Amino acid sequence: MEKLKLLSLYGDFRKDLAYIEKELERSLNSSSPIIRQASLHLLRAGGKRIRPIFVILSSKFGNYSLEDVAKVAVSLELVHMASLVHDDVIDDSDMRRGLETVRARWDNRIAMYTGDFIFSRALTSIGEIEIPAIHQLLAETMLEICKGEVIQIDHQRKTNQTIRDYLRRIKRKTALLLSSSCELGALVSGADPANVRKLRRFGYFAGMAFQIVDDILDITSTDEELGKPAGSDLLNGHLTLPILYIKDDVNFQPYMKRSFDGTLTESDREEMLTYIRGTEAIQMAQAVSDLYLQKAMDEINELPDGDANAKKAFMQISAFIGRRKY
Amino acid sequence: MEKLKLLSLYGDFRKDLAYIEKELERSLNSSSPIIRQASLHLLRAGGKRIRPIFVILSSKFGNYSLEDVAKVAVSLELVHMASLVHDDVIDDSDMRRGLETVRARWDNRIAMYTGDFIFSRALTSIGEIEIPAIHQLLAETMLEICKGEVIQIDHQRKTNQTIRDYLRRIKRKTALLLSSSCELGALVSGADPANVRKLRRFGYFAGMAFQIVDDILDITSTDEELGKPAGSDLLNGHLTLPILYIKDDVNFQPYMKRSFDGTLTESDREEMLTYIRGTEAIQMAQAVSDLYLQKAMDEINELPDGDANAKKAFMQISAFIGRRKY
Repeated sequence: MEKLKLLSLYGDFRKDLAYIEKELERSLNSSSPIIRQASLHLLRAGGKRIRPIFVILSSKFGNYSLEDVAKVAVSLELVHMASLVHDDVIDDSDMRRGLETVRARWDNRIAMYTGDFIFSRALTSIGEIEIPAIHQLLAETMLEICKGEVIQIDHQRKTNQTIRDYLRRIKRKTALLLSSSCELGALVSGADPANVRKLRRFGYFAGMAFQIVDDILDITSTDEELGKPAGSDLLNGHLTLPILYIKDDVNFQPYMKRSFDGTLTESDREEMLTYIRGTEAIQMAQAVSDLYLQKAMDEINELPDGDANAKKAFMQISAFIGRRKY
Repeated sequence: MEKLKLLSLYGDFRKDLAYIEKELERSLNSSSPIIRQASLHLLRAGGKRIRPIFVILSSKFGNYSLEDVAKVAVSLELVHMASLVHDDVIDDSDMRRGLETVRARWDNRIAMYTGDFIFSRALTSIGEIEIPAIHQLLAETMLEICKGEVIQIDHQRKTNQTIRDYLRRIKRKTALLLSSSCELGALVSGADPANVRKLRRFGYFAGMAFQIVDDILDITSTDEELGKPAGSDLLNGHLTLPILYIKDDVNFQPYMKRSFDGTLTESDREEMLTYIRGTEAIQMAQAVSDLYLQKAMDEINELPDGDANAKKAFMQISAFIGRRKY
């Protein structure tokens, strides 16, 4: 019930989040039955709604208007959802959040266009906000995310990559969208430019910590907790931070090789996960995440006390995502 | 050399089109080598640049600024290119415009993200225009195109569809983007609202005629003229207007069946094309295209004579696309 614990941290902001959830659902009510079913399937599979809550909290440092906040938050969550649908096509993934993926339940073609549809819907949502800087920032963010996706394909199964390659990759994959969530939330409420910058940096650092923890959990959690097979990253050829720490370990290398060429058996997979968990790779990765988390907290501390509740919620949510169990 | 003939119709506007072409190339100069290569490959394969020329000509009915026109035109051509990249994934197409497709030269995954990248780049280009109605219209257009793509998948190989289903499908597939090209060109130059509406309707009618002719050419042209195998639509399970006229013809049905289940041989394909060409289906489809073309011309006639060159070019280009050979 980790997710319930997270939601409880959203405290007073849960009411606004519920409004955004309704708007998300409304935005996906396409006139095409297949798109509606596919995208609502994904929406109802849940998610932590980190991007919407970051938009809400960041907006609290300016003049908060729920209606505007919701348009931005819906847009960002939709961009995130669209990228998940496309990622599942790329990775041939059948399960996400414990449910069948769109590509598994329908097919790759439906998934591709459902992703395109959700992207477009993200644009119509934010399109109602008449602040040009906001559209520019969202478009730039989407562009960088796409570049990141291609770099990720290019890096797949390449064992000569560095930790710096990894950090650059997760910056685009995750940190940028969280950073933009904070920046857009702050911009839409007309927050002070100095605070906009602090919030943007906070989102970036929190995003880096979040993704590193996500990559750790892919190894340390059970299939059930993950809602998909543990070790999926490696099976899909993605070298995450813990793996980069042990990729030259001769005891580990045979597992890696078999993960990449698809000959890893089910019992090999369990053996491999047990092996990685027994090395220092996990703690070393966790330490990097903690460093980012500390930087995130530092930015929050520098924010004005104006909205003490928002500051407190930011702190608690950050601490939670840095130490969460799934 | 049909394409040269078309370009010659662009007359005085070729200089502006060349500027837009440069901007298109600049916009695709991504920092990621794979994306850059894949998208420039597609750009250099050419195309008629109908969307950019429609933006240019429509802008002539307001206060023409090449810089703004180029941002809109680049954006629309990029949306078109992105949808081609994704369509080729869906149809497993290996050839387009006589060149390998992105998915064939690279792979489906690269093609999907290159498409996403080009979509995002379309947004950053138009994002520089500070007119909210323009962003809204582009986002709505993209949304409808995506819906159209899913409907097209849903209609694939379904022989119980009607001509009305077909017309609705090509509206989304082609006519909407041409209609929006005209409307956005008119809007960005601040044209009179009555003229904006006429231009939008013109684009829609011209787009319908254009797509019907495109679907006819898929049957009547040679593989060489098309730059891909003739009859590809049917082989991909898409029932176009000429086919809808003969789908109940018992002599034709065995070909259709074998096209759909993938058992059509190379000599069957040639036989089938010869058969269709010998029926009245082609002329009947051409007559529908001509009807739309007449409606398009009527809208142009109603426009003010202010820019006589633009009116003339619209007329000539429309006549050309309605009667072109490929």
